[in-house]
Amino acid sequence: MTESQLYDTLKSYGFLITPYCSFGLTETPSIDFFPVALKIESEKVIHKSDFGAVKLNINSMQALEKAKEEIIANISAKEVVLDATDRFIATQMVSGIELYVGLVDDDIFGKTVVFGMGGVFLELYKDVCYIDLYADNAEIRHAIGLTKISKVFEGFRGFDFSIEMAVEFIRSFQNFAKANPDIIELDFNPVILTKAGLKIADARIKKGEQKPEKLGTLRTNRPPFFSNQRVVLIGVSSDTTKVGYSIAKNSLRYGGELFFVNAKGGELFGKQLYTNIAHIEGNIDTAVIMIPSKRVTESIKELIERNLQNLIIISAGFKEAGDNEAERIILSLSQQHNFNVIGPNCLGYLNSTENLNLTFGIGGLKNGKLALLSQSGAVLSALMDKAYDAGIGFSHLVSCGNMVDLDFAEMIDMLNHEEMCEYISIYAEGIQNGKEFLRAIRESKKKIYIFKTGKSIESKKAAFSHTGNLSGNYAMFKGLIESVGAKIEKNIEALLFNPSNEVNSILIVTNAGGPATILTDYLIDQDKTLYTLSEDELQALNKVLPPHWSKNNPVDIIGDAMANRYEKTLEVVTKFKGVDLIYLLITPQCMTDSLAIVQLCEREWGKKIYPILLGGHEMEEAKEYLRIRQKLFFKTLQSATSFL
Amino acid sequence: MTESQLYDTLKSYGFLITPYCSFGLTETPSIDFFPVALKIESEKVIHKSDFGAVKLNINSMQALEKAKEEIIANISAKEVVLDATDRFIATQMVSGIELYVGLVDDDIFGKTVVFGMGGVFLELYKDVCYIDLYADNAEIRHAIGLTKISKVFEGFRGFDFSIEMAVEFIRSFQNFAKANPDIIELDFNPVILTKAGLKIADARIKKGEQKPEKLGTLRTNRPPFFSNQRVVLIGVSSDTTKVGYSIAKNSLRYGGELFFVNAKGGELFGKQLYTNIAHIEGNIDTAVIMIPSKRVTESIKELIERNLQNLIIISAGFKEAGDNEAERIILSLSQQHNFNVIGPNCLGYLNSTENLNLTFGIGGLKNGKLALLSQSGAVLSALMDKAYDAGIGFSHLVSCGNMVDLDFAEMIDMLNHEEMCEYISIYAEGIQNGKEFLRAIRESKKKIYIFKTGKSIESKKAAFSHTGNLSGNYAMFKGLIESVGAKIEKNIEALLFNPSNEVNSILIVTNAGGPATILTDYLIDQDKTLYTLSEDELQALNKVLPPHWSKNNPVDIIGDAMANRYEKTLEVVTKFKGVDLIYLLITPQCMTDSLAIVQLCEREWGKKIYPILLGGHEMEEAKEYLRIRQKLFFKTLQSATSFL
Repeated sequence: MTESQLYDTLKSYGFLITPYCSFGLTETPSIDFFPVALKIESEKVIHKSDFGAVKLNINSMQALEKAKEEIIANISAKEVVLDATDRFIATQMVSGIELYVGLVDDDIFGKTVVFGMGGVFLELYKDVCYIDLYADNAEIRHAIGLTKISKVFEGFRGFDFSIEMAVEFIRSFQNFAKANPDIIELDFNPVILTKAGLKIADARIKKGEQKPEKLGTLRTNRPPFFSNQRVVLIGVSSDTTKVGYSIAKNSLRYGGELFFVNAKGGELFGKQLYTNIAHIEGNIDTAVIMIPSKRVTESIKELIERNLQNLIIISAGFKEAGDNEAERIILSLSQQHNFNVIGPNCLGYLNSTENLNLTFGIGGLKNGKLALLSQSGAVLSALMDKAYDAGIGFSHLVSCGNMVDLDFAEMIDMLNHEEMCEYISIYAEGIQNGKEFLRAIRESKKKIYIFKTGKSIESKKAAFSHTGNLSGNYAMFKGLIESVGAKIEKNIEALLFNPSNEVNSILIVTNAGGPATILTDYLIDQDKTLYTLSEDELQALNKVLPPHWSKNNPVDIIGDAMANRYEKTLEVVTKFKGVDLIYLLITPQCMTDSLAIVQLCEREWGKKIYPILLGGHEMEEAKEYLRIRQKLFFKTLQSATSFL
Repeated sequence: MTESQLYDTLKSYGFLITPYCSFGLTETPSIDFFPVALKIESEKVIHKSDFGAVKLNINSMQALEKAKEEIIANISAKEVVLDATDRFIATQMVSGIELYVGLVDDDIFGKTVVFGMGGVFLELYKDVCYIDLYADNAEIRHAIGLTKISKVFEGFRGFDFSIEMAVEFIRSFQNFAKANPDIIELDFNPVILTKAGLKIADARIKKGEQKPEKLGTLRTNRPPFFSNQRVVLIGVSSDTTKVGYSIAKNSLRYGGELFFVNAKGGELFGKQLYTNIAHIEGNIDTAVIMIPSKRVTESIKELIERNLQNLIIISAGFKEAGDNEAERIILSLSQQHNFNVIGPNCLGYLNSTENLNLTFGIGGLKNGKLALLSQSGAVLSALMDKAYDAGIGFSHLVSCGNMVDLDFAEMIDMLNHEEMCEYISIYAEGIQNGKEFLRAIRESKKKIYIFKTGKSIESKKAAFSHTGNLSGNYAMFKGLIESVGAKIEKNIEALLFNPSNEVNSILIVTNAGGPATILTDYLIDQDKTLYTLSEDELQALNKVLPPHWSKNNPVDIIGDAMANRYEKTLEVVTKFKGVDLIYLLITPQCMTDSLAIVQLCEREWGKKIYPILLGGHEMEEAKEYLRIRQKLFFKTLQSATSFL
């Protein structure tokens, strides 16, 4: 397709094109839109610039004639013979704000629109956003707002273009791409922003074989994964160092029917160990498999006869160990007999609604509103430890393992029906079905937080060797996910701390100015703001603090502050309505009684208070005090802020 | 100064200006450089655009005549009467790469050049660097390289402009600014990058009162601060909770002459407590003052009589408590009698070369190559604790306190003569004399690392209330410091860990893929790269590892790895020549014997090995083992990487 043919097509779809004119080699066109660029349109000349076949800044008909002659001479000097099929195209050179609109066909996310600052520096500043082909106006508007160039829609330097022009343009672009599925790459660069709308000033297209559209490949009519009645654990062990022991122990609080299977029989925790599934009567809706990988398929087949609905395969030795075939069989069985599979190679599943803990991680976790899905067992395990220490509870925990069957999209869909769950945190190493993932987030009733690894080739490799999944382009992942409204976290701990914890306005109480200043900087790095004290609030603090306190936030109550000064300060600042969170920053000064200070946190202040204890041994007692009570506290300024 | 007068001046300084022509209201100029922009040049029309007095994209003499008429009509419609002093200016509209070159007069750093991407989006993308007025070619070149736009000098999209053109332009710009000290702001935007050089396409100037030039205000002939012979401690105390006790105790290892003064007399640590300085015979070159602030000046006067060279004022109650007058007196005395002052309101000073520890921080710190200067006592104290735990040693420690006299520049200068010091780390809240600071770093023989607070108005306030110093614009601070070659750290701990620790190529040994993937991402965020294993190295690892190890870096030796597999792996990977640093990532899996694994770190492997112990209680024994031995280790992935 020549440039002018492409422009003709685009025009027919309603796109505005900056003036252009295509004409034969010997024709003399009538052009009234100078200055123009003149280019050859010929299949024989691919890299026009190399042939001297592009002339810029032509200002008159006279200069145009001269440029035509020069281009023809340049081409024939390269020994290319032009003929009657070859033409010139003159395009108007327009100045103005240059935008970029493009289409890529991503392996993970399929056809995706890229919008942003255009021109020659597109790749240098990468000020772009990513928009799903199925995004609606609100999503497009939100995505555009993520770019810096979107300031031209908000009055930057007097520019007052309407964002709706850009939204409309992208809608047309989506429709054009949907109507022409053979387009695999499309580049409009630049698109000139004018009062009359967005005008395409240059375009490039690549057609090719259409990849299968990834939308709508989910299994329908799945049994609900988070609903269980008769649960069997296969591979229970009385050896306390074995997974089969830990999971059995954690499972005991389950209120439904629970069966333990172990080939050798016997008894554990007062429960019979069945030597075989066959000895259990009736249906089994949920099974946990912890036996060696070679015997897993056989067990599954037995379970299918008992109307299996949900299967959790703890056993390792599958894809991660090079065995793709076994997983293929498991997937095929699950599709054929319509049951859900979690794993293999995972550390289990916890459902607080049913008191069902089928994990071998730390026990004694509190109930909460957070569902945590993790593609890595070790990461989940570390997060469970941290949650235990900080007293954070869960509604659900899913260790996804190799994700042979249930994917994130389907789990998000299912969690929509779980009342106890208000937030979903996801640790993802790879996404298989990007369009479905976006769809699920878009439709989710819960607030979603995602930490995704794989920012580079190096970590892509690491993820690959770990779960055999592919990591897509991180910037695209982040852009698309943010467009649909989930939050991308930079820090793994944020998956625990951020849900239910949207902090906007912060106050710092400290006995040392320096660390408080650093803390302030770290908060600003996280786009958080410090609360501004009102005149009345200053007065209130003046009454309880020595004359040389800082008189602003951070509230520096001076190095000689003992617990009673911290207490008086808290009594005042916890009444400040605009404050969401108070950091209680404690550094070891001569007389600081850190234990007495942290004991203040036991009181019900009606505000979130995070103690930060800087310093080593002098602080040990206070730290231990908080640790035992499962109170969240921090030992460094960075950890106290990085998850925000 | 009108636009054309400014251009005429710039031309006379050798700057290239894009073609322009200034002409009377009724003149008809002869212009051959279309397209042009036409503007009025009149003192009566300040905001030209608001008057409709700018016309763009004029392509012919005919169009120019029309534009002239329109502008005149627009202005008279606003009821402004033009006269014979008013003129038009026509400037060529050129397209090309748009750069920005500007001059600002900063409160801290004085006249500073700003260079970067120009055009209308300058403030949006802020792709600029900062260059001192006294920077030489190498420094300018280095600064330019910090911008993204500098890629046009490195072949980006085929651009092959020479960076030397830009360097030469900035040299001319510096000279122009130096020759015209009344210029307080200068904006060239855009400057067009052409093969023939950089051409100014638009310029704006602001003249005003010249601020005093800040270069060369340092005191000359100071006595060397890091050299001491007869040291007196004033305000020694036998009360173990007092500063006067801690400093006296820490000072005991000093090899020179040491005197303790306490008004009550007596004895401490077997040393006489003089009741008065008068009772000590001979000169006193160094004194530490720990008595209440009101009596400090009196003591100083006595010390001056004894030929005081170096004074460390620990006592608080000065500027930070609102008393500026006392500090003014101290400064004036120090200038008059030529002695150095550290403090007041500081926690002291340590000089390993002389075994002189005059701090009240943690004792027992190792000797090392790092000099650490800190403007906050609490921050220094926390860093000293951390250094103790990690076995990091110091050549010098200076708690700067209120910095009444010696500033960072002077300390850097003095450290140049200290052989033991190889690196200087600085925690800065504010800089008073920016030009001197830059000069000192530029001339320093030591590698310098800086953490600076005050990224925002909020933290500016915090810094102000803390030490009474002003924080300048953070971006400018960072840009200028990087131009002169010091490293700006994002993380306070980096001040300890980064010196002597330039890590480029990293290898990860792990028993869990997920955390290793996150670690890889965090490393990439710090611009670090993972070492790529060669075929031979892969083979060597194949021999000692189970078949399903990751086959790349991160070296995932699988969850069931015991200490002996870690050991065999270390035996192989510590021989890889290209590896600077090995992370030993240990997660609690069923059988992991973390203590036995960390014990491997005791061996001399010839490589830097950082253990990371994820997980809670299971790891406690291993952590304690490392802690007792002052071995650096990490408990989170983020802390293990954030300082790099």
